[in-house]
Amino acid sequence: MAFSLFQGVKLGILGGGQLGRMLIQSSLDFNLDIAILDPDPQAPCARISSNFTNGSLKDYTDVYEFGKQCDVITVEIENVNTEALRQLELEGKKVFPQPRVIELIQDKRVQKQFYQDNNIPTSPFILTQDRNEVMRHADFLPAVHKLGKEGYDGRGVQMLRQVEDLSKAFDKPGVLEKLIDFETEISVIVARNEDGQVRTFPAVELIYHPEANLVEYLFAPANISEAVAKKADDIARDVITKLDMVGLLAVEMFATKSGDVLVNEVAPRPHNSGHQTIEANQTSQYEQHLRAILNTPLGSTEALQPSAMVNLLGEEGFEGMAKYEGTDEVMAVDGAHVHLYGKSYTKPFRKMGHVTIVDADLERLKEKATYIKNTLKIKA
Amino acid sequence: MAFSLFQGVKLGILGGGQLGRMLIQSSLDFNLDIAILDPDPQAPCARISSNFTNGSLKDYTDVYEFGKQCDVITVEIENVNTEALRQLELEGKKVFPQPRVIELIQDKRVQKQFYQDNNIPTSPFILTQDRNEVMRHADFLPAVHKLGKEGYDGRGVQMLRQVEDLSKAFDKPGVLEKLIDFETEISVIVARNEDGQVRTFPAVELIYHPEANLVEYLFAPANISEAVAKKADDIARDVITKLDMVGLLAVEMFATKSGDVLVNEVAPRPHNSGHQTIEANQTSQYEQHLRAILNTPLGSTEALQPSAMVNLLGEEGFEGMAKYEGTDEVMAVDGAHVHLYGKSYTKPFRKMGHVTIVDADLERLKEKATYIKNTLKIKA
Repeated sequence: MAFSLFQGVKLGILGGGQLGRMLIQSSLDFNLDIAILDPDPQAPCARISSNFTNGSLKDYTDVYEFGKQCDVITVEIENVNTEALRQLELEGKKVFPQPRVIELIQDKRVQKQFYQDNNIPTSPFILTQDRNEVMRHADFLPAVHKLGKEGYDGRGVQMLRQVEDLSKAFDKPGVLEKLIDFETEISVIVARNEDGQVRTFPAVELIYHPEANLVEYLFAPANISEAVAKKADDIARDVITKLDMVGLLAVEMFATKSGDVLVNEVAPRPHNSGHQTIEANQTSQYEQHLRAILNTPLGSTEALQPSAMVNLLGEEGFEGMAKYEGTDEVMAVDGAHVHLYGKSYTKPFRKMGHVTIVDADLERLKEKATYIKNTLKIKA
Repeated sequence: MAFSLFQGVKLGILGGGQLGRMLIQSSLDFNLDIAILDPDPQAPCARISSNFTNGSLKDYTDVYEFGKQCDVITVEIENVNTEALRQLELEGKKVFPQPRVIELIQDKRVQKQFYQDNNIPTSPFILTQDRNEVMRHADFLPAVHKLGKEGYDGRGVQMLRQVEDLSKAFDKPGVLEKLIDFETEISVIVARNEDGQVRTFPAVELIYHPEANLVEYLFAPANISEAVAKKADDIARDVITKLDMVGLLAVEMFATKSGDVLVNEVAPRPHNSGHQTIEANQTSQYEQHLRAILNTPLGSTEALQPSAMVNLLGEEGFEGMAKYEGTDEVMAVDGAHVHLYGKSYTKPFRKMGHVTIVDADLERLKEKATYIKNTLKIKA
């Protein structure tokens, strides 16, 4: 390596949202010099980085010029210009996750095909070009229809339950996935460094908001059998190894009623399903991401205590400058850790922050999570 | 209160060293808008704060002008201009710890007198004006002689063991303290908010570097009896309450061989003896300091696992741009958490960072701490 850890490595992050913000928080421990690129001058990282560039993540020149000043370049969002990243890689920059991995994951069609080609268990699917093609597959319903590109945080995903739903299908290249009658949705975060060391975090259980298609709650550990946990762990290791990827990968999976585990989709970066690792695990997902891309030994992922995570979403029906209700009540809950993302403007379901709750007692943990969800409100 | 938590409170911190740096790291969770004042343009906080003012902490105008732009003002070092802070307080700013508390603690003579006047157990002492007066107290030896003002990180403290040592005594107002034949040096960190809520962290054990008079190691919990721990906890609560102080107070104490607990000295801010709370306790000392000065409910101080802390001091015999040795070896230790302070220049015994080690097994914890102390070296 051209650089040595702790000696002022310049790390460029594409994206200045909450994931970048928590990555910055963690990076301070390692004397890293952080640069941020984001199109929003009000991004969560804008005021906390001394090197913030306002520019497009999708523009070749913006990404290339930004990357040229850095030693290592990473992402906190997949939707970036990978041509520029490929050029930076050619010029000798460390780019992790690698541009070819980002490209594969950017397109859910390619991602799905990769699982099939590599014997990674996933739900049955059909690749479609447009609405007309979707309409020909009434016999495949109920299904989930996903846009190939540009989906994020619940956008670009639709449920097609019956024939009447077909006429509302996206009219762009997408993937039609068989609806899985799952028991539990789980996530395993796995890291891999340049030396090939791989470590996984224990599986967590995700509970989605029914309308917003966003993670609303999370519990760790997931309420699954040891056998299912082992399967999920093996699959996560298998995916990152077959991708030959360096960095952090969140592998979202379905645990089915028959005991199977199927990959739903992956994200090559810190993920909403790993926020609780800041308090609950020996190493946080943010530090693990840094360790992986800087090629240092990976940290222990051991969970110190059970934990829950509640996403703080902008309240429905409110848009404008955020006003927080119930803050003192939540701060008074022992084991509750509030994380706000520095966003002053709220709108329905906008991710404004999260609260992690750590408690040795599982029942009390769930009570506290429910109380916090019902108490802390973000209005305008 | 004129402000509500999470709504963009502007917090000014006097001092931009490592304690300020870790306070910034913690403050990001609460959307606080942080401003820093420090005389060193290369201070650990300089590059990580979007609002860094280069100025003197001892100058009335620098401190006053800095404070005027803030809602709440706090310190990460005691040696600041309290006249300016008193004026800011008069003008309605929240200044915590209060200027009168900072003044009392700034002068070790006044501090010591306060313990005596308030029935807080402390070692016998004599206030002295100059070297001549010290020399008259040969019968009081062995003693520790401390300068009243300006001592910091081991400076301004000397051992006077025998009559021959007296001629080397500081020739300024100071305090001569009876040398205590202690069993253990311990610290209890206590917080108190404006509502009067008080919470203590469990006592930790401090092991000092014999030459540098700096904390070299720390173990939590301290190896003391429950009775001694209870005494120490009661004393810490008593001191902060009698000071009528708002904020965080580190109370350093001697546990004597006869089971007594005596206050050595206090610091009204996050402290070296609380670094390990970031990983090992439910709430970190940094977050607890913020909770106290922002008058929110205090967090749980419960320790999740035993921990040790090793200060990373600049190696003796080296001065210049820092070079780190043994980094990968230390990163490979499960449960080791490296914190660097963003200082590029090292000199002997300069505090460059620390490592916290968390491990359920006490023996393994001590082995890991020793290994890290012997492996990670900061040279030039």
